[in-house]
Amino acid sequence: MSNAKLYLFPVPLSPDTTQKVLPGFNTEILREIKYFIVENIRSARRFLKQCDKSIDIDTITFFTLNEQTKPAEMPEMIVPLEQGHSMGVISEAGCPAIADPGADVVAIAQKKGIEVVPLVGPSSILMSLMGSGFNGQSFAFNGYLPIDKAARAAKMKELERRIIHERQTQIFIETPYRNNKLIAELAASLKPNMLLCVASDITGEKQSIITRKLSWWSKAKYNYDKIPTIFLLFSE
Amino acid sequence: MSNAKLYLFPVPLSPDTTQKVLPGFNTEILREIKYFIVENIRSARRFLKQCDKSIDIDTITFFTLNEQTKPAEMPEMIVPLEQGHSMGVISEAGCPAIADPGADVVAIAQKKGIEVVPLVGPSSILMSLMGSGFNGQSFAFNGYLPIDKAARAAKMKELERRIIHERQTQIFIETPYRNNKLIAELAASLKPNMLLCVASDITGEKQSIITRKLSWWSKAKYNYDKIPTIFLLFSE
Repeated sequence: MSNAKLYLFPVPLSPDTTQKVLPGFNTEILREIKYFIVENIRSARRFLKQCDKSIDIDTITFFTLNEQTKPAEMPEMIVPLEQGHSMGVISEAGCPAIADPGADVVAIAQKKGIEVVPLVGPSSILMSLMGSGFNGQSFAFNGYLPIDKAARAAKMKELERRIIHERQTQIFIETPYRNNKLIAELAASLKPNMLLCVASDITGEKQSIITRKLSWWSKAKYNYDKIPTIFLLFSE
Repeated sequence: MSNAKLYLFPVPLSPDTTQKVLPGFNTEILREIKYFIVENIRSARRFLKQCDKSIDIDTITFFTLNEQTKPAEMPEMIVPLEQGHSMGVISEAGCPAIADPGADVVAIAQKKGIEVVPLVGPSSILMSLMGSGFNGQSFAFNGYLPIDKAARAAKMKELERRIIHERQTQIFIETPYRNNKLIAELAASLKPNMLLCVASDITGEKQSIITRKLSWWSKAKYNYDKIPTIFLLFSE
């Protein structure tokens, strides 16, 4: 077994925040790696340059891993690891393998007994939960709610049930241009004394984390259109 | 409304890893704050000194927030915020308000309309999930499993159900001296092809993140006794 490791590099959520959200240690590791699995090569190059201008991009090999990648293509991406070279996974924003295709390549590495090393960085899900004031001893991230009307209503009722009976904070996301609509929908569908936290532009200049009852949100003025936003529900 | 903010400061999980797991930005903010809500004053002092030796601890006011703190004592802790002074929350290890009493004081700040600012740092829960290779689009952290035998068995079955029917990764923790027993218990109680990830000593010198089937764990040699460990379950 070689000593090669698969490092998971978090990426900033907002422009020009590399120093604000990443430990210097990540860059020390980054400098030593010549093989990266990335969601998007252009933004990965930009990220590497932001971490350290002196990195010579031309000596680096990139493998693209995104929603179009077929499972059959993944094992060949980790061949450098099997040959003894450490590799890095870089996603588009936030933490690789969290709400991100990186998890598949990590699963393959685990199967092959390769050491996986996650590094510290910004997670909008986790930071939203910290800032919400909701239960951090029990919580669930649900990704996107279903689009089909009946399935969506059923999911909302199930989230409400888990909040009330299990005291489990429920976290989810929405396609950003539908953020405002989702808030109105939650206010119309769930109990008015349910608490909704809307956490938007996490780590960005317009970061805002606001926890209020749905009865407040139903009358509030807000505009989260096209802003990356996390939604969290809980009750008192 | 004053401009005072409640900052949430993550703390290293392992000794001597401050530079490895915290962005330099956190220390810049830390230096400006004179009022802290902390789980343990001694370790908070040590943490401040690790971030910046030049911080004058004697000019800082600490409020203790732990499991013994009564809800009635919390509002007075944030009086400095209401008087216009930014404050910080520091937990014992990891991210405040995640599996930690800090969430209550955040909830009070939210109710009073005070801006809450979570900072980036190590979360053993999130880093374990990244390294597990499990579904990061849907996951739940369940805290500790129930101790009562019947309730514990029922909870395990419910976790198994959510993994299979909802494809939701299930994450939980155990009192560290019972870690080994829990692994044996999971292997004996759940389907042998279920995947268990055992993530121990995250960010520490003996960090290990191993994902294998329960049939493998049932025969494996391991010793996680008294080592902080996160357990994750999923199925292929």
